[in-house]
Amino acid sequence: MQKLVAHALLRDAAYQHTSTPVISGQTMLTYAGIYERAVRLASSLHRLGIRPGTVVGVIDVNTYRYFELHFALSMLGAVIHTVNFRLPLDTLIWTLQHAKDEWLFIGEGFGDLSATLAPVVGHVVQMGGAQAVSPDRDYEELIRDGTDQEPDIAASVDPSDPFSLFYTTGTTGRPKGIRYTHQQMLSGALQIAHHLGLYDTGAHLSAHDVMMPLIPFFHIHGWGAPFIAPYIGAALVLPERSDPAAQRALIHRHRVTWSNMVPTQLVMLLDGAADPLPLKVLTGGSPLASGLAHRADSRGVRFSLIYGGSDQLGSAISTAPGLSGEARVNQLASRVTPFPMVRMEIRDAAGQPVPANGASLGEAWIESPWLPAGYVDNAEASNRAYVDGWFRSGDLAVRYPDGRIAVMDRLNDAIKSGGEWIAGSTIESVISEIPGVHGVAVIGIADARWGERPKAIIAADRDVSTSLVQQALNEAVQQGRLAKFWLPDTLQFVETLPMTSAGKINKAKLREIHNEQ
Amino acid sequence: MQKLVAHALLRDAAYQHTSTPVISGQTMLTYAGIYERAVRLASSLHRLGIRPGTVVGVIDVNTYRYFELHFALSMLGAVIHTVNFRLPLDTLIWTLQHAKDEWLFIGEGFGDLSATLAPVVGHVVQMGGAQAVSPDRDYEELIRDGTDQEPDIAASVDPSDPFSLFYTTGTTGRPKGIRYTHQQMLSGALQIAHHLGLYDTGAHLSAHDVMMPLIPFFHIHGWGAPFIAPYIGAALVLPERSDPAAQRALIHRHRVTWSNMVPTQLVMLLDGAADPLPLKVLTGGSPLASGLAHRADSRGVRFSLIYGGSDQLGSAISTAPGLSGEARVNQLASRVTPFPMVRMEIRDAAGQPVPANGASLGEAWIESPWLPAGYVDNAEASNRAYVDGWFRSGDLAVRYPDGRIAVMDRLNDAIKSGGEWIAGSTIESVISEIPGVHGVAVIGIADARWGERPKAIIAADRDVSTSLVQQALNEAVQQGRLAKFWLPDTLQFVETLPMTSAGKINKAKLREIHNEQ
Repeated sequence: MQKLVAHALLRDAAYQHTSTPVISGQTMLTYAGIYERAVRLASSLHRLGIRPGTVVGVIDVNTYRYFELHFALSMLGAVIHTVNFRLPLDTLIWTLQHAKDEWLFIGEGFGDLSATLAPVVGHVVQMGGAQAVSPDRDYEELIRDGTDQEPDIAASVDPSDPFSLFYTTGTTGRPKGIRYTHQQMLSGALQIAHHLGLYDTGAHLSAHDVMMPLIPFFHIHGWGAPFIAPYIGAALVLPERSDPAAQRALIHRHRVTWSNMVPTQLVMLLDGAADPLPLKVLTGGSPLASGLAHRADSRGVRFSLIYGGSDQLGSAISTAPGLSGEARVNQLASRVTPFPMVRMEIRDAAGQPVPANGASLGEAWIESPWLPAGYVDNAEASNRAYVDGWFRSGDLAVRYPDGRIAVMDRLNDAIKSGGEWIAGSTIESVISEIPGVHGVAVIGIADARWGERPKAIIAADRDVSTSLVQQALNEAVQQGRLAKFWLPDTLQFVETLPMTSAGKINKAKLREIHNEQ
Repeated sequence: MQKLVAHALLRDAAYQHTSTPVISGQTMLTYAGIYERAVRLASSLHRLGIRPGTVVGVIDVNTYRYFELHFALSMLGAVIHTVNFRLPLDTLIWTLQHAKDEWLFIGEGFGDLSATLAPVVGHVVQMGGAQAVSPDRDYEELIRDGTDQEPDIAASVDPSDPFSLFYTTGTTGRPKGIRYTHQQMLSGALQIAHHLGLYDTGAHLSAHDVMMPLIPFFHIHGWGAPFIAPYIGAALVLPERSDPAAQRALIHRHRVTWSNMVPTQLVMLLDGAADPLPLKVLTGGSPLASGLAHRADSRGVRFSLIYGGSDQLGSAISTAPGLSGEARVNQLASRVTPFPMVRMEIRDAAGQPVPANGASLGEAWIESPWLPAGYVDNAEASNRAYVDGWFRSGDLAVRYPDGRIAVMDRLNDAIKSGGEWIAGSTIESVISEIPGVHGVAVIGIADARWGERPKAIIAADRDVSTSLVQQALNEAVQQGRLAKFWLPDTLQFVETLPMTSAGKINKAKLREIHNEQ
């Protein structure tokens, strides 16, 4: 019986899409080649003692080795901990310890981490680059030494077995760990593909696309790309360690047609050159400012906005049936439709659904078949976030009469002024549309009378003046895009905005700085 | 937690695609309206004693009542037995008894069956039309009497609970019963939608299509259409009892864009008028003769061929990435790609894979996540067909170097001549391309020297002569489409070809008749 376990996807791809390319840097492989390497690796790792339930950490950019390692560990029933290497070192070490990693695989270019982390996990394997301390610690040696049959244990791995473990990048307190079974991770990831195939949207996906995931694997496995590509048999290009210029070169050289990235990465791709970028892009992780959306559109990028997160997987994607032109771009940049099998409700503080009028703000609650049981060893946070089978997202959203949902802000990032919510992301969108603005964040500043008042922090060219911004904001009020009381009391120009390790603007940091001023 | 059970699909559609139309005859409903009716019906049926595991038979054409009844029974954890009303009456009664149906729902126009079948099942409910014997036996009365909350039991129904039961229409011996859980039936049905969304094919499906399933619900729930439509939120048109002319009228009136049907139904739709038929059609159930394929294409029909069956659900669909014109039509009519998660192997009599050369014939073996455990109360047939987690399809097929598969014939229908297989379906394709040919079947006739020799039985206009057919066959030999020894020894013209209750040419019957002559 065929089972929904990760290595079944690769095994099938090797059988059915045998010579479809998997490209990574200078390395040209196929699904059949990757499968053979994964099998050999699994047999060696089995010999060395990796067993069902063993937690294995991986530190690497998106390479073919990281890709195939997913499936080798799946064959052993092991759990892959996709380590966020952008965390501060002490926090990174804390996650290795909290996850109880017994093995750690470190990619090329992270060589200096080996010595530091070896005492923490015991078994460190070098994935190319630096000289390994012993043959048993050299990745390619392990593959050469392997046998060409899946380990027997591979047939017993069950969809309900744990497979994936990673940590949230909360800006306050310790990260929270989340563990997914094969069934949860794969059904959640593959539903992204199903939605992109079945709905009229920008980043429409087909089995005949060439996919290049720019979301790092440590963010929910690059939003599921390493599972989606073999599942549908699409060609896969892995960007390895590449800057935006190199990424553009990969797109042209390998005729990449589909990618995923956070808005910050999209800005960098667009900034580097003025030529057209005919690419389908799945973006998300933070709201897509309308200025960026229109700029991307004018360069030929067709995009969709995905809504989801580490603790819920993907939940919704923007669609635009029957729309064209500006209406289509606005719709795709801002309003999402839940995946089939996902229920999203927007609820007020008392847990009651808010009216579906496109104006009443509430918190997004999510129910789906792939929600995790809770956070790892953190009952308090679990009980707060996972309630009666639903996930409280902590995201502020509105529901429209047509059932679409606009996610505005993190509740923590939202501004409460005189008892009313202000959606900073809408103000950010207005300011982002001004030519010369590179980045903007609107945050709440403590205010004796109103509780909080909005302040806009803007990174822009020198010719963007305060009065220009004020004029744009006033026009938005006249157009009904902003309520008058939403207008920021203060505008401040800065050189750069602080970012989190997930590539989002670090609003917690901004609030800290600007509330102290 | 959201679970993969049938009524969750309708509940979500009512919430997310509230006012999307569900049209059936003169009745215009929406997903919200259908859901309300299903809830009311379920609460009444619960009051009357339908419980988890109760088997409920349904005899009806594709109506909104049959549609909503699926979900009402799902809410109760009951099993829906989709009765094949085209079976001979004694066989039909045998299936009711074998399935242990406690209730039977009979649609409009089947009124005369109520009296006959009431003694067999005890509880008969009239779904409109004839006067019911008591209010508790009148379908609309049950809906009026219901409450507007799902019965409590609905929340406990599990994906692993049995949900669907139907019988094969084997041409020899008793039908075989097959029972599917929610998980199996829904994951199998929905994978059809996923495949049609993600691959370049003729019957490409999108959430924005208007679907009209012409496959009757008693054939694997109309190939899953009642689950697919609410799952993606597509508008649904139910044809009720309609002839091809009425079906064409429905297509035009409701702007139907997608349908499913067996090749015989497609012929009838095309025969009735000469105007374009801009429709996406999923077809299958028997090979698609290339004559019909090209005729359909020239009328604007874009089609895909699906391969599957009652005892395996859907397994593969034809795709044609990068192809256009005649090559595309030929490809879409003949070669299928397995669904993601489905493995198809073509094996010889010893169980070894045949070479993937497009010529070596073998039996198609299938492995998928939704294979049933076996036939109901039929260990002998189960053990023959379900082996080591695989399903032996009994279908003769070849595999091509690109991984695509052409299913040629039922093994039982295939012709063995001098120890070599002859694929009658290829000969049928050649003859079907001759203008004026309406139907053709090639069967094996016992032969003292060769074991069997092919004979072609042809239904055609009077001006199609024997020499015309022979000329076409000889050209096909010269083109390499047919081996010389495949040429039929005999051609016979007939008025009509006998059909099975599934709308396929009854080759068993033809073999019986023509081997006696």
